[in-house]
Amino acid sequence: MERKQEVSKAVIQRLPRYYRNICELKAEGEQRISSKALAERMGLTASQIRQDFNCFGGFGQQGYGYNIDKLQEELGAIMGLRTGRTAILLGAGNLGRALLNNFNFSASGFELLCAFDANPQLIGQRFGGHEVRSADTLVEFIECNKPDVAVLTIPRGDAPRIARGLVERGIRGLWNFTGEDLHLEGLGVPVENVHLSDSLMTLCHLVGAADEKREQNL
Amino acid sequence: MERKQEVSKAVIQRLPRYYRNICELKAEGEQRISSKALAERMGLTASQIRQDFNCFGGFGQQGYGYNIDKLQEELGAIMGLRTGRTAILLGAGNLGRALLNNFNFSASGFELLCAFDANPQLIGQRFGGHEVRSADTLVEFIECNKPDVAVLTIPRGDAPRIARGLVERGIRGLWNFTGEDLHLEGLGVPVENVHLSDSLMTLCHLVGAADEKREQNL
Repeated sequence: MERKQEVSKAVIQRLPRYYRNICELKAEGEQRISSKALAERMGLTASQIRQDFNCFGGFGQQGYGYNIDKLQEELGAIMGLRTGRTAILLGAGNLGRALLNNFNFSASGFELLCAFDANPQLIGQRFGGHEVRSADTLVEFIECNKPDVAVLTIPRGDAPRIARGLVERGIRGLWNFTGEDLHLEGLGVPVENVHLSDSLMTLCHLVGAADEKREQNL
Repeated sequence: MERKQEVSKAVIQRLPRYYRNICELKAEGEQRISSKALAERMGLTASQIRQDFNCFGGFGQQGYGYNIDKLQEELGAIMGLRTGRTAILLGAGNLGRALLNNFNFSASGFELLCAFDANPQLIGQRFGGHEVRSADTLVEFIECNKPDVAVLTIPRGDAPRIARGLVERGIRGLWNFTGEDLHLEGLGVPVENVHLSDSLMTLCHLVGAADEKREQNL
């Protein structure tokens, strides 16, 4: 599957949702799904799905729907989930430990190598099988092991400085939980920001809209 | 500002991003911004921004740009950020504690009342000023205090059953970190799912795309 150049960010951000739904369908025992049924499940239109998939050459045969095994494999290949990329995690506080203990990094395409923290009480401990190492050994570790990306679960104030240092040492992507803008545009290093507040504000709005609807129906 | 009926989900999900960028602009000391400048900052088009804002009656005057204070206030009002809604958190494990300690609930429109857990070692402890209460007292608490929404940071297997119980007792929205589909469609109770894996898969894809680009430029 050849990747066409310059697929829009919106399409790229839908790929994981497609992949997740396909994985769920597979777990439910399905083998085939039409673009119409997939659209209903995901709250999209069938034509949008066909358009998105066409960015990558399309995966189905008109009228036959999509083979779920094949779709899972091809979407996974497009996202590079099986290319064996590696990650380190910086900051083993509550959020960091929650990820270390519970998050399935390998299902999202990364082998988590280890975590780093400056707190002596955490250094040497293991969470979810991942060792916390001293922040003093970070630079040496990066030079020896060349991890691809770093997960930032450090306090927000330090984030831009630390992120810049990581990129200078060869880190090629950042998963940023700090809420801080890392200002790395132009360096060619992708940053995925997790803005939990966006999600909670959306909920706030939806609760208000649902309340209004209920009142109107009374 | 009257809310027009049935604004699309895509627009609603962009509102928090608008709001966040406007808050950042305000913090940077800006007072006014054009749809063009806002579009560039956010990676959208100016016409999309005008179209989105028109769903709510529009906030600007042609040629004058948007007043940042006013836009912040109006976007906040649309999302209902100052309506004093309340939340409880279920599950004070690492992720729950990370939210209790660090997440600014009130900035996203909710007063967090307290947390619940079944672990006796956690009950009575406070994190970020929020008390952890016994899960045995949850039903009574909901009846007395009528919280609007619940944050689910419990293990995933239990989530659909517990979510259904919460809704039966009057909870009107769920912020779902469990990764489990809660199957509440049709009950009129909005659910915001936080799928961290979607974000990491997107990063995986972007790192691959950036690598390809670098190789082509060599």
